[in-house]
Amino acid sequence: MTHPPKTRAVVLLSGGLDSATALALARESGRECYALSVAYGQRHQFELNAAQAVAQALGAREHRVILIDLASIGGSALTDRSIDVPTEATTGIPVTYVPARNTIMLSVALGWAEVLKATEIHIGVNAVDYSGYPDCRPEFIAAFQNLARIATKAGVEGGAISIRAPLIDLSKADIIRAGVRLGVDYGLTVSCYQADSLGRACGRCDSCRIRREGFAAAGVADPTTYVHKKIV
Amino acid sequence: MTHPPKTRAVVLLSGGLDSATALALARESGRECYALSVAYGQRHQFELNAAQAVAQALGAREHRVILIDLASIGGSALTDRSIDVPTEATTGIPVTYVPARNTIMLSVALGWAEVLKATEIHIGVNAVDYSGYPDCRPEFIAAFQNLARIATKAGVEGGAISIRAPLIDLSKADIIRAGVRLGVDYGLTVSCYQADSLGRACGRCDSCRIRREGFAAAGVADPTTYVHKKIV
Repeated sequence: MTHPPKTRAVVLLSGGLDSATALALARESGRECYALSVAYGQRHQFELNAAQAVAQALGAREHRVILIDLASIGGSALTDRSIDVPTEATTGIPVTYVPARNTIMLSVALGWAEVLKATEIHIGVNAVDYSGYPDCRPEFIAAFQNLARIATKAGVEGGAISIRAPLIDLSKADIIRAGVRLGVDYGLTVSCYQADSLGRACGRCDSCRIRREGFAAAGVADPTTYVHKKIV
Repeated sequence: MTHPPKTRAVVLLSGGLDSATALALARESGRECYALSVAYGQRHQFELNAAQAVAQALGAREHRVILIDLASIGGSALTDRSIDVPTEATTGIPVTYVPARNTIMLSVALGWAEVLKATEIHIGVNAVDYSGYPDCRPEFIAAFQNLARIATKAGVEGGAISIRAPLIDLSKADIIRAGVRLGVDYGLTVSCYQADSLGRACGRCDSCRIRREGFAAAGVADPTTYVHKKIV
């Protein structure tokens, strides 16, 4: 008896909580997963080490890191060291927004998916407990899906590459509960915008705040090491 | 008397004939041009030297080269040295197609446009005398325009970044005539998929063939140095 070939998926993996959960969900549904991380000059280099550990722990078939030098474009507190990461809530789109980041990462994933003949791309964006970035919204995913159909060899030849955002409607607490059910070790993940070289989170930035509140709401112990124990 | 501020545009510049003409047209129409080249691991590294010379000759305000390591994804004769560049006509989408290349380059241009607060991105794609790539067609540009409106801070805040493809309906001969009128020195440009380290064109690949035929049809002397003088 032969088994049907597995659906092949490129999974964007940042090293954070959301994308780790997206990878665990893709693996649970039987996908053969190719994890892709983008080294874009982020402050939080520790993310990439975390991505590698997560890819291995969750059984990705392969993990690849692509270098894209977005720091030379600047314009974000995450890539430009002259802009501070805010430690207080802000209104509107925050300075941690990296211009066109998800567009660029999905584009590279699209290229790799074409090479691998993968039929899906999974991205762990979330439009509930998030930082207010334009490229985390359902309409962004729909627009990229439309582009992917038109831009690729697969699309022209009648196939298609499907863009999946399985976390888009989940709260942070729901995401954490799903990951815990699937055995995700969140201790391997890093969410902080300015984690130190040991991977310790600042405990003060927007991403730390959302993560902390998520674990509290899910009733799950937070394995994160925070430098600042309390939200100030 | 004060002048109104110039429209700021990011212009994708490959070092080839088309994008040089697109830059010349943008300059003629009074744009303040920020030229962007992507070093994606192409075989034809000479392109990047050409892009720099073209940016300077045509008065770009700035020229930036962004490194994106697409060679580590592979899948194209332009980035993978184990795949030969064809020297005969092929049918369908050729092996010189770089998966998702224009999607990736427009995405990076979108990021830089956001940082610069530029309101336009110009790309020299052409759907008449071209190699049959899916990401050179008008419907691709329209799909990216739609994405750009949704993906960016500018789009969310009510502005928009307009994607311009001024050459899309022109024949190669029309493009060359327009460039000659604007004083473009095509001797600075390189089209060949496998130019040597001196910038000399092979004279045999699809891109050389289209370029040669374009100069002939335009009745303009071709300044290109071809290693192989005749199409074989």
